[in-house]
Amino acid sequence: MGPRRFDADVYAHRLSEAAAATAAAGLAGLVITPGYDLRYLIGSRAQTFERLTALVVPAFGEPGVVVPRLELASLRESAVSELVLPVWDWVDGDDPYQLVVAALGGAPAACAVAESMPALHLLPLAEALGVTPVLATGVLRGLRMIKDAAEIDTLRHAGEAIDRVHARVPQLLAPGRTEADVAADIADAIVAEGHSEVAFVIVGSGPHSADPHHECSDRTLQVGDIVVVDIGGACDPGYHSDSTRTYSIGEPEAQVAQQYSTLQRAQRAAIDAVRPGVTAEQVDAAARDVLAEAGLAEYFVHRTGHGIGLAVHEEPYIVAGNKLPLAAGMAFSIEPGIYFPGRWGARIEDIVVVTDRGATAVNNRPHELIVVPA
Amino acid sequence: MGPRRFDADVYAHRLSEAAAATAAAGLAGLVITPGYDLRYLIGSRAQTFERLTALVVPAFGEPGVVVPRLELASLRESAVSELVLPVWDWVDGDDPYQLVVAALGGAPAACAVAESMPALHLLPLAEALGVTPVLATGVLRGLRMIKDAAEIDTLRHAGEAIDRVHARVPQLLAPGRTEADVAADIADAIVAEGHSEVAFVIVGSGPHSADPHHECSDRTLQVGDIVVVDIGGACDPGYHSDSTRTYSIGEPEAQVAQQYSTLQRAQRAAIDAVRPGVTAEQVDAAARDVLAEAGLAEYFVHRTGHGIGLAVHEEPYIVAGNKLPLAAGMAFSIEPGIYFPGRWGARIEDIVVVTDRGATAVNNRPHELIVVPA
Repeated sequence: MGPRRFDADVYAHRLSEAAAATAAAGLAGLVITPGYDLRYLIGSRAQTFERLTALVVPAFGEPGVVVPRLELASLRESAVSELVLPVWDWVDGDDPYQLVVAALGGAPAACAVAESMPALHLLPLAEALGVTPVLATGVLRGLRMIKDAAEIDTLRHAGEAIDRVHARVPQLLAPGRTEADVAADIADAIVAEGHSEVAFVIVGSGPHSADPHHECSDRTLQVGDIVVVDIGGACDPGYHSDSTRTYSIGEPEAQVAQQYSTLQRAQRAAIDAVRPGVTAEQVDAAARDVLAEAGLAEYFVHRTGHGIGLAVHEEPYIVAGNKLPLAAGMAFSIEPGIYFPGRWGARIEDIVVVTDRGATAVNNRPHELIVVPA
Repeated sequence: MGPRRFDADVYAHRLSEAAAATAAAGLAGLVITPGYDLRYLIGSRAQTFERLTALVVPAFGEPGVVVPRLELASLRESAVSELVLPVWDWVDGDDPYQLVVAALGGAPAACAVAESMPALHLLPLAEALGVTPVLATGVLRGLRMIKDAAEIDTLRHAGEAIDRVHARVPQLLAPGRTEADVAADIADAIVAEGHSEVAFVIVGSGPHSADPHHECSDRTLQVGDIVVVDIGGACDPGYHSDSTRTYSIGEPEAQVAQQYSTLQRAQRAAIDAVRPGVTAEQVDAAARDVLAEAGLAEYFVHRTGHGIGLAVHEEPYIVAGNKLPLAAGMAFSIEPGIYFPGRWGARIEDIVVVTDRGATAVNNRPHELIVVPA
């Protein structure tokens, strides 16, 4: 656990782009509390809650950080030192919201805040500013959604690592083991295959495969089970993998196999629909249309995908109503699923990166229903 | 990991007290997103972020839950079923904020929100409501701060468990081991001694002991080190332990021993100051005054304590400026510390519960600087 190194140029560029986007939006500044935006902008993994830590990025002028004196040392584990940013520290009893106001120039100011800023800080900040803030999402979206070459490399590296974990899964799915047993082995494999941490492990067997957000339980695997395995981890400096494959312990029933193959076509259709200029909702529709034609639309109960990067779920969301045009450098999941409550379900998920010509998947394991000999 | 059981009476009582407090505050209702308040009110450990899950508690009328259809199954792992609460589910593309407005009666309404509600939900909710919400802290404070007998039992149980972990610490502090080695053993011991999960492990040795929020590093322990060990875990259904003791590897220097004994008197003075009617800031002052008399005030750089329960840090905060009168059933830490940057630091922390007559500590390990033979 040696000290992390930060490339000042990368973070200085992001801060200056963020300030420019803030100015373009007609806002006085950004106020960014701990979370992914803070990590993106200055590399800080701070997780403070009740004491305010905030990066203030004025539209015009120098950015700086308001931080509890207690957290000064951990703030140093970010690009703050390399960037030589001013730091305004405070102690219990001070009013940190006034420090933010001062950093923004001292007058009532329309600013934008991180999505993750808790009400605990947002409401007193709004009062101190005299203006209700707006979400910084719109300002930072363009920056965070378009991955640079180093970010894409890390996503690809993470994708290859999670593919190697999926390659190990069939041997773990032995009848008689519990979902929790399998999940523990998968968690070990996520780290063993090159991730720095486990993000999540979903093992949904039998009827649990029909619950898209089931995690794992002490249910014992049985011959005849369909098993959804949706797993991911993070690779330094924090970019995620996320891939789902569906397994069958023993040969599946004919109807299951047939419905699964429709799902597989739906997932393929969505990937094929990806290219710059196509909207997020058009990609969602591409998957949904294939399922609808087969009478399965009502069993696809979630969106088709989500962006991925420092957060497992971030923009762009591949969902009906999202008219955002895709652009080269965006990275997101394509993960349609079908769920028959109480019976079985399936999902197929790859992370893809938008290129000038279409989509490149970072996950490349076979998409078929993978039959594990019983 | 069998299904958890929920005592409907406990949660029904809390919901009805919360509604009464909301009415008394002149508010139309509470809107509680995932976090400790949600766990307190309905036992849900939901952790959704970008899709709105919210318990709505109208001041007058029936509470209910707005939840993404995807999360219905995990919502069932709460007291929602036992309480037979109405559930309004929504799918991607719906406007969940309008469901909240409807649950509050449909008109512009002043409501209170959980401290943890992220800006992502708070700002659109404020727009849908037509009124900026206030923090629910004031409304829920009286409920969450005053622990009932079952909560106090769990805090005591957790305190005894962490005391047993501290009893094991001296044998772990061998020169040549790293802070990270020691922390890993402590994490194992936290679970082995009866916690259901590890909350945090701080091992600050040598100069790191002077950083109150240091976690652990690959620094190797050395003879002559002062080592701050601040550790905690959670016991089902989620109540925390949190206790700090300071260790010396080999005999400490005379000045260290003397300054430590002042700290010990400060911690004792604060515990002795606790009784119903005394304010939180008076308890803080009791510790600070002892240190000030010895010329050590400037080295005590944080508040004296924090409430504890489902959250490791919650109200009441034992800090200058907090004029809250203490009351029987409150539980909080008493943890003064002294920090000499670059050299050494020390902290002593017990969790205490306010009784009719004073304070009862749930931690009872010796408070002296614990000398580990080198």
